[in-house]
Amino acid sequence: MNAEPRRRRSTDRAAHKRPAAIPQLAMTHARNPYPPMRLLSDDQLEAIHEAAMHILENFGIEMMSHSALDLFAGAGAKVDRAAQTVFVDRGLVDQALKTTKSAYQLTPRNAEKAVPIGGDAISFTLVAGPPNVHDMERGRRAGNHKDYCDLIRLAQHFNCITMLGNQVCAPIELPANSRHLDTYFANLTLTDKSFHVSAIGRGRALDGIAMMAIARGLTLDKMRDDPAVTTIISVNSPRRFDDQMADGLMTMAEHGQSVAVTPFTLMGAMSPVTLAGALAQQNAEALAGIVLTQLVRPGAPVMYGAFTSNVDMRSGAPAFGTPENTKANVASGQLARRYNLPYRTTPGSASNAADAQGAYETMMALWGAVLGHGNLVYHAAGWQEGGLTASYEKFILDVEMIQHMMEFLRPIEVNEGELALDALGRVPTGGHFFGDPHTLERYSTAFYQPLVSNWQNYESWQEAGGLNATQRATGLWKKALSEYEQPPMDEGVREGLDEYVAKRREEIGAGEP
Amino acid sequence: MNAEPRRRRSTDRAAHKRPAAIPQLAMTHARNPYPPMRLLSDDQLEAIHEAAMHILENFGIEMMSHSALDLFAGAGAKVDRAAQTVFVDRGLVDQALKTTKSAYQLTPRNAEKAVPIGGDAISFTLVAGPPNVHDMERGRRAGNHKDYCDLIRLAQHFNCITMLGNQVCAPIELPANSRHLDTYFANLTLTDKSFHVSAIGRGRALDGIAMMAIARGLTLDKMRDDPAVTTIISVNSPRRFDDQMADGLMTMAEHGQSVAVTPFTLMGAMSPVTLAGALAQQNAEALAGIVLTQLVRPGAPVMYGAFTSNVDMRSGAPAFGTPENTKANVASGQLARRYNLPYRTTPGSASNAADAQGAYETMMALWGAVLGHGNLVYHAAGWQEGGLTASYEKFILDVEMIQHMMEFLRPIEVNEGELALDALGRVPTGGHFFGDPHTLERYSTAFYQPLVSNWQNYESWQEAGGLNATQRATGLWKKALSEYEQPPMDEGVREGLDEYVAKRREEIGAGEP
Repeated sequence: MNAEPRRRRSTDRAAHKRPAAIPQLAMTHARNPYPPMRLLSDDQLEAIHEAAMHILENFGIEMMSHSALDLFAGAGAKVDRAAQTVFVDRGLVDQALKTTKSAYQLTPRNAEKAVPIGGDAISFTLVAGPPNVHDMERGRRAGNHKDYCDLIRLAQHFNCITMLGNQVCAPIELPANSRHLDTYFANLTLTDKSFHVSAIGRGRALDGIAMMAIARGLTLDKMRDDPAVTTIISVNSPRRFDDQMADGLMTMAEHGQSVAVTPFTLMGAMSPVTLAGALAQQNAEALAGIVLTQLVRPGAPVMYGAFTSNVDMRSGAPAFGTPENTKANVASGQLARRYNLPYRTTPGSASNAADAQGAYETMMALWGAVLGHGNLVYHAAGWQEGGLTASYEKFILDVEMIQHMMEFLRPIEVNEGELALDALGRVPTGGHFFGDPHTLERYSTAFYQPLVSNWQNYESWQEAGGLNATQRATGLWKKALSEYEQPPMDEGVREGLDEYVAKRREEIGAGEP
Repeated sequence: MNAEPRRRRSTDRAAHKRPAAIPQLAMTHARNPYPPMRLLSDDQLEAIHEAAMHILENFGIEMMSHSALDLFAGAGAKVDRAAQTVFVDRGLVDQALKTTKSAYQLTPRNAEKAVPIGGDAISFTLVAGPPNVHDMERGRRAGNHKDYCDLIRLAQHFNCITMLGNQVCAPIELPANSRHLDTYFANLTLTDKSFHVSAIGRGRALDGIAMMAIARGLTLDKMRDDPAVTTIISVNSPRRFDDQMADGLMTMAEHGQSVAVTPFTLMGAMSPVTLAGALAQQNAEALAGIVLTQLVRPGAPVMYGAFTSNVDMRSGAPAFGTPENTKANVASGQLARRYNLPYRTTPGSASNAADAQGAYETMMALWGAVLGHGNLVYHAAGWQEGGLTASYEKFILDVEMIQHMMEFLRPIEVNEGELALDALGRVPTGGHFFGDPHTLERYSTAFYQPLVSNWQNYESWQEAGGLNATQRATGLWKKALSEYEQPPMDEGVREGLDEYVAKRREEIGAGEP
């Protein structure tokens, strides 16, 4: 499991074809070879588990979906119909955890880009859900279809992004009840990567599953045991699953597609102001959703999702990439592993700009995600303003930071060649290794080659315009868009997608999807 | 040893006296309560140790100081006088490691600000050595005495900076042979923290030790067993200690003051292009210097210093905060602990600006330093341009990042109050915790309060000027300078320092210090 990711650099043959291309890591299945960090002792972990059980058994979870309540009732859970509340006892949790999977894989239309979920695999996704987009040249604007397409082109271009989130921005000029068809169509034609389908109601989820099945040339039945897509079920914390989310969850599970149940537990707002309390709540809410997936379909692929951060207690504004958020990212990994579940986490930032704050907040939370052994690092590229804006420059900065982490996760090799005693004996005291054969044999691939980082001396940097990292990122996303290549698609498949979209658009009309 | 650092916030009584003060963490002795990260297996660690022994025994270390060679020869080491090279056998290394200390303390004139070195203590220092300074208003300029004083005032102001480096900038308008007297005088009068003395030759080291002794009211004899200052001995890698550095090291050890022996092993330039090779070289060089300290004075306080990073192989320019540098920071901690020595490390960046690159590179290396259990995190605040410039804005950003790490290192508490089951039972589903008594009792100190991070929504942020983090940092260093308070000093002590400086200035004249 600790296999080293393959690595190709711009110096490799493939990249040499286009010598001016932006350097980037080769497509790889990144793995985290180090033991997960532990911030909670075993006793503390058990205390949080027990508190979560107390919440589930005594306070209950509001499920605004009748079919969800029916499923719980059918499984023997105490259900208060008037309050739409289910009390999930620990036996039901234990039962569900017998059928969940510790690892699975999401296979998109290009099977080479299948995303392993669980174990020591780690994947990074494009930001999902912002209403706005921003870049330094055109400023901030409402989400729209053109930006949607450009942002997913960027995600397609960079190998370190292995999955699209749900709607990198909302294409608000398109009809609300059918725009999911347009975004799925874009995902499937402009990229060949897996994506997150919207689970706001059954229809949107099912359309995403069906369109991916067409793109893969599979029936829904075949894809039920060979999942391709995931969704995030955001809990309306505290302790509420709304009807659309519950229905979306059930649809995904029925079709054997992946769900990440993710409470949004902002400490001090939707959760207790204390980390232990927020984690207990998160744990109860996540487990309630996880139980529901297994009631729908035992074995349905499901992740333990965590998104615990804090608010600014002076204003109530959400904060991300804080020390508390970083601790939560690590500790939540301990909880996920306690239940033997894959772990979804997030490196956020509240910064309004792709600036130093954006970088250090994202780095904090990203390290928490990596040290906590996140399997799906969601919203990993392009997240700005606490998720309200998809930023082109932040996307580029995030790709750089993700690649730094991926390289950090490559194990150190220690062997005769790496120890370099021959070179160390050859180079005189006070000399240098530049021209030594040991260096010449290895230099072109020895180090990570960054895309944003500028290592020029001050004078050369000034002569080249003295651009800061954010300004350089503007040039890089434009160049990446110019380098982008649309992945080929069989004409018949494309027609199939066209037909599906046309049919569904007509069915939906002005109604609900 | 895992005691939680004390924490006061701006909401505490002391801060309430000046309600507009920049929020910051209280003075604390930060500790790293988590197990160190391990990137090297035991076998790999031993292979690097063995390679280092091979280097020491077979390739040797050039010592350009005759007295250093005499000491090694006297201890039985093979010495090649013509080549000024000593071959350090493993017996000599083992012998030295019997007398080194795993932990000690540096006590400045304010004993409350003593810096613990070793164990799970972690300290952060002001950048040392840049020839230039930079801020966003006045631009880049050569180091000078006014900026020197302002930068150490900033270091005095922020509690998370526990020690000054050696000359935060060179005051180049002052005579080169006596400017160390001016900087020591500034260190001792404008701050009450420990500092790094220059060990370029005996004179500079001795002046620093003597002036600190005056400030503490101690004789040199008394201070020999109660160290106050440290120096960094930078090895001229590969495998060379120049005469001034060797003499400085010996002077420090003779006087029982702390030394951090720090090879500057830039992979591909002064070291092999491979991390294992660079670490083997670093290890050999560090151990050679460490042995020398113990030959001078068994028990002399000494740290294992590490500064392994890589260069840009296209230009030869040094790079910092890279994945390779980050791995080296972690792995070097394993080496330091193998020898039971305190560990000095560094979070650098090559960025020419206090921008997103500066932030993410420093964050990478800082996490490496923390996960590797660095005891003295050197150059931790203000480092820009790979150390060629001390930046006011970067200083502020670094303080923010250091405080993030210090808060991350506060253990999670799990107990009845923290688990908040009472509040979790009280707040209805879909409700919020803002007004709950559990929140109200804790909210003012529950979360880390940042100084740079802006959590306003986009509109409010725009209305307030839409300043990015670097621009906000400009306002913050100016405000910090206005809040700075000079620590009181006994008049007699100050006169003693004046006299010492006047006498030494006359002695030195135009000659060597």
